[in-house]
Amino acid sequence: MREVFQQELQEVQERLVEIASLVAVSIENATRAFNESNVSLAEQVIADDDKIDELAINLDELAINILARQQPVARDLRIVVSALRISSSLERMGDMADHIAQLARYRFPDKVVPKSLRKTFVEMGQLDVEMARKLAELLRTEDVQLAEEIRNDDDRIDALHLSVFEKVLGETWKGGAEDTVDATLASRYHERFADHAVSIAKKVHYLATGDWVAPED
Amino acid sequence: MREVFQQELQEVQERLVEIASLVAVSIENATRAFNESNVSLAEQVIADDDKIDELAINLDELAINILARQQPVARDLRIVVSALRISSSLERMGDMADHIAQLARYRFPDKVVPKSLRKTFVEMGQLDVEMARKLAELLRTEDVQLAEEIRNDDDRIDALHLSVFEKVLGETWKGGAEDTVDATLASRYHERFADHAVSIAKKVHYLATGDWVAPED
Repeated sequence: MREVFQQELQEVQERLVEIASLVAVSIENATRAFNESNVSLAEQVIADDDKIDELAINLDELAINILARQQPVARDLRIVVSALRISSSLERMGDMADHIAQLARYRFPDKVVPKSLRKTFVEMGQLDVEMARKLAELLRTEDVQLAEEIRNDDDRIDALHLSVFEKVLGETWKGGAEDTVDATLASRYHERFADHAVSIAKKVHYLATGDWVAPED
Repeated sequence: MREVFQQELQEVQERLVEIASLVAVSIENATRAFNESNVSLAEQVIADDDKIDELAINLDELAINILARQQPVARDLRIVVSALRISSSLERMGDMADHIAQLARYRFPDKVVPKSLRKTFVEMGQLDVEMARKLAELLRTEDVQLAEEIRNDDDRIDALHLSVFEKVLGETWKGGAEDTVDATLASRYHERFADHAVSIAKKVHYLATGDWVAPED
């Protein structure tokens, strides 16, 4: 029984890694679609989000099934409950990639943001991609150093997010209302993407060390 | 054992109703703070969000505790897992009220949005308040008619959300970049608030009828 349970937990873990890896590809494609105004790539991200949603639902079913059959307690129970939460956060990260891709598709053939912000959005995208890759690796290895790095990356995303507002609200901003709306939304999506990554990193850190980093924000 | 379990489920339900009721008060106060530029009310919403977060964490602990001690299966298990998810969505609804209040506090003593959008935001706020109240009632009574109403309310919120963009991107828009950013964010927060309400309503509907309405969006 115990051995079966361990195998099932491993299955859960592998599936979380799989979804996190897909999310990393999605945010990379979404960022490229957004920055290069690539509508076919945007459409792929939107299609891939359905796949991420489906994998998350299947994983939830597996986790609930494990709860019902194995009736885990203590740490084992917390692992399964955490898997449910992590799956939900990964699903939202996929949504954020989808939303960024939708902005790109909606404005096509125009580029979404004006020149003065492009470098910032390239940087935000790169950071989000790195965070998602580290997250997949963290889920695979439970190397808490990665959780720490993800939190540091998030501080940089927050700074970039603020800098978008400073630019948009600054005197040199030449963008029209459309540019302002797009920059506001895209920046918010990147920032939320990173928040979800941190939230997952905290849960894995907690499970790996038994040390509760901080309550949900 | 069974009787204890039923009492515990009732406790979970009561706590969900309590949190939903607090969320309804918060979104009402946040909307007033936002529309009337009332900074002390905004600060109250921000403080109340900490309370909502704490109640949600306590409820999660109770639910995990029930899983560990009662080891429910089948429908009982799904109720407890759903409670965890509902609690997480309620916590996010509290965050949305907090974010709206923060916009009001940040711009004080200025009003957050220009005159041409005030009516729309009053309407969005009223709808969100109604949805949150219906949600508390739905959680208390499991009256699926309310779930239906919440979904209809959400369609109206989505239409208002679109109308904000139409106005901001229209030729008559006189607002500056700050107005555009604020309107974009506030509208997005109201829309997300409503999405979470629908997501909870679907879960309760599913639990009440065994009829899965639709997968997570």
